[in-house]
Amino acid sequence: MASTIVFFSVKKTAQTTTRRCLKGLAHSPSVSLLPGGRWSSRGTGVRFMSQGTAAGRSRRGALALSAAAAVTAATAVAGFLANADHFQRAEMATSVPQTAEEKKKKDYEDEGDIVERCKDFMSVPVTDIKVLQERKQEMSTKMEMLIMETQAEFCKALQEVDGGTFKVDRWDRKEGGGGISCVMQDGKVFEKAGVNVSVVFGNLTEEAAKQMRSRGKVLKGKDGKLPFCAMGVSSVIHPKNPHIPTVHFNYRYFEIEEADGTKQWWFGGGTDLTPVYIDKEDAHHFHKTLKEACDQHHPQYYPDFKKWCDRYFFVRHRGETRGIGGIFFDDLDSPNQEQVFKFVKSCARTVVPCYLPIVYKHLSDSFTAEEKDWQQVRRGRYVEFNLVYDRGVKFGLATPGSRIESILMSLPLTARWEYMHEPPKGSREAEMLEVLRNPKEWV
Amino acid sequence: MASTIVFFSVKKTAQTTTRRCLKGLAHSPSVSLLPGGRWSSRGTGVRFMSQGTAAGRSRRGALALSAAAAVTAATAVAGFLANADHFQRAEMATSVPQTAEEKKKKDYEDEGDIVERCKDFMSVPVTDIKVLQERKQEMSTKMEMLIMETQAEFCKALQEVDGGTFKVDRWDRKEGGGGISCVMQDGKVFEKAGVNVSVVFGNLTEEAAKQMRSRGKVLKGKDGKLPFCAMGVSSVIHPKNPHIPTVHFNYRYFEIEEADGTKQWWFGGGTDLTPVYIDKEDAHHFHKTLKEACDQHHPQYYPDFKKWCDRYFFVRHRGETRGIGGIFFDDLDSPNQEQVFKFVKSCARTVVPCYLPIVYKHLSDSFTAEEKDWQQVRRGRYVEFNLVYDRGVKFGLATPGSRIESILMSLPLTARWEYMHEPPKGSREAEMLEVLRNPKEWV
Repeated sequence: MASTIVFFSVKKTAQTTTRRCLKGLAHSPSVSLLPGGRWSSRGTGVRFMSQGTAAGRSRRGALALSAAAAVTAATAVAGFLANADHFQRAEMATSVPQTAEEKKKKDYEDEGDIVERCKDFMSVPVTDIKVLQERKQEMSTKMEMLIMETQAEFCKALQEVDGGTFKVDRWDRKEGGGGISCVMQDGKVFEKAGVNVSVVFGNLTEEAAKQMRSRGKVLKGKDGKLPFCAMGVSSVIHPKNPHIPTVHFNYRYFEIEEADGTKQWWFGGGTDLTPVYIDKEDAHHFHKTLKEACDQHHPQYYPDFKKWCDRYFFVRHRGETRGIGGIFFDDLDSPNQEQVFKFVKSCARTVVPCYLPIVYKHLSDSFTAEEKDWQQVRRGRYVEFNLVYDRGVKFGLATPGSRIESILMSLPLTARWEYMHEPPKGSREAEMLEVLRNPKEWV
Repeated sequence: MASTIVFFSVKKTAQTTTRRCLKGLAHSPSVSLLPGGRWSSRGTGVRFMSQGTAAGRSRRGALALSAAAAVTAATAVAGFLANADHFQRAEMATSVPQTAEEKKKKDYEDEGDIVERCKDFMSVPVTDIKVLQERKQEMSTKMEMLIMETQAEFCKALQEVDGGTFKVDRWDRKEGGGGISCVMQDGKVFEKAGVNVSVVFGNLTEEAAKQMRSRGKVLKGKDGKLPFCAMGVSSVIHPKNPHIPTVHFNYRYFEIEEADGTKQWWFGGGTDLTPVYIDKEDAHHFHKTLKEACDQHHPQYYPDFKKWCDRYFFVRHRGETRGIGGIFFDDLDSPNQEQVFKFVKSCARTVVPCYLPIVYKHLSDSFTAEEKDWQQVRRGRYVEFNLVYDRGVKFGLATPGSRIESILMSLPLTARWEYMHEPPKGSREAEMLEVLRNPKEWV
């Protein structure tokens, strides 16, 4: 069953020209990486249609992967693209015959068998499978299945490129619920990669309720109690190579039961990129991929959530954004639960196609000690944002029984704080700072 | 003018036995280190009367300094001890004749010439010297002189042991006031050493007022405005060697003018130690030195402020204290301004005798890569406390025009976050954790 999977446009590429991309891939020229996906290569390359050039350098059009790389990258995104016909750029070079297996996969995505779907997860879900089956039509079940799937697909794509294996911890929360934390530390490509799922419930603490009210929520508790259920998938990936950016995403669902028994619910989430050096081509690709996912649901989503992202990931005391943004939204509760869920699903499925091609592109970039130092300084800023401003971290730290290791796995393995660090004018480091101080439009 | 200065009890020590302590000292066997102090050695050693042994190892009685080290350490604390007759342990082995210079120094400490005193500072003070002279009797002047003196004396003691030089930045705050930041980075002994003075005034922001009200302060502003003046000296020292602990101190004074023109004032501060490995002897010395300073002013100060310190420097989400504590107090406004100031002065003067002997003791301790790693993990926890809980950092980040580099100079040069780091049972790392989870009495 040989099929050619291409996730953007296709261009034949001599294997020799992109040899540098092969590191870390050689062990799997043809793999069955994602649940239900089985792909092999016909010697095609993959190229993004990018207009960007890295400013300050003449690095051009390098987002090209060789045959073997194409397969691996393709398998990494294939599971996402199989059902993502809204990716306008995804021209299918040859038609992809749907196997029985693929058909099954497509079917059970929405109404398929819970038990079957769970087989591909990194661990059994937090909620008992029987309960999930009984409550198949409830949003909490649909969302738990989506976050588990997202975790598995992203972890497998990262393992594929790194060659390492995620450590999987399934944990219970005494107060209700639990989670599955997948962490790969000190790998070949990734310094620290964490992909976490959590499904927690109980009564909202006063501190957490205060945080929510400060965002304008009206919460009427019964005897001061506000039963809640919160679930989400979140991930931060810190690569070793300073030319591979850090990525973060988080998709979450919240339910609160008020005194009169009505349920408030909302979704939140986003995906954002934090490069150490600006690569305009990467930035364009990342944002364009997100925009295409958003545009399927509402023309205002991308522009609004892009701005929200720049505002949210702002390290106020430094006067700079954490990275080059992406999208961010919270408290999304219209037009209706099903529509918002579909949007969130599209977003979750852009994670791999947003990020993996960038990883492959820079896999074998060489770097200097100075570039590594600058990465460490930027890592320090990352820590500052996460500990001082991040809403998820604040909620986690304020929620008794939270699993601290899972909340703080977003912190890099190493970071650095140099007093009065200021890059020289005209340097690539200064160029990066300039972008962080004045967020740009990338699409 | 040869005199022997000993700050604890004296014991002759063969120079060869403590050769390891001489590193970094050789360049100044006899120095005039502190303003007004001029000391030379008569070949005596210095030894603490310590009962402690480092648990888990038989490292005993190592707080002994050789002749040259004794001089250096003595000069480092001499300026403090000259007027600190409440140090019961400071037995003067030979009487110290008071030179005219010393007499002058002693005199102007309380009512001496402002201009003369300023000559020894790391920089001219924040407030114009003329203004300081005109308002000599005001508490704000007395405190500004004390914090400038404390900064100079501590910086010089650290330079002496490191061999490096502090970078001195004098900065203005647009909204009112300014500061002097002294930072030594990547020195021989210290990875990062910061000693900061700030004197700021203006109107309290709503966020800062909220923080204060949450501690029970009643603040009645005029048209919502609360003019304030805040000043303090604060310091964090991160050594390279994992056997030399991190120290932090901060002494500050606050004035707020209310709607009816009355002034609220209070002092706050503390000194605390954060070792990477437990050394009971060090812990005992550190706490005993603080206790003796406290006991001169009130018998409850040490026990109360020791507890407060353990409570304050608690990393709640980890369930552990930041270090082995010391003292901490805030909102201290009784019995009267002058008495509290005297107490704060005593505390400021214990900084060098608390810390420097510990630095000298471990100056040449060898360490392994694993010990360095554990230090980096502990540094990560330090960052967590400072960014998530520290009141000073919060106030700084919430105050517009704050000098961020001075607020965050307390962060270490490097730190590390390992997922699920848990030291093996029975290890020295586990012993450290045990103490952080169950704070001990050291005196």
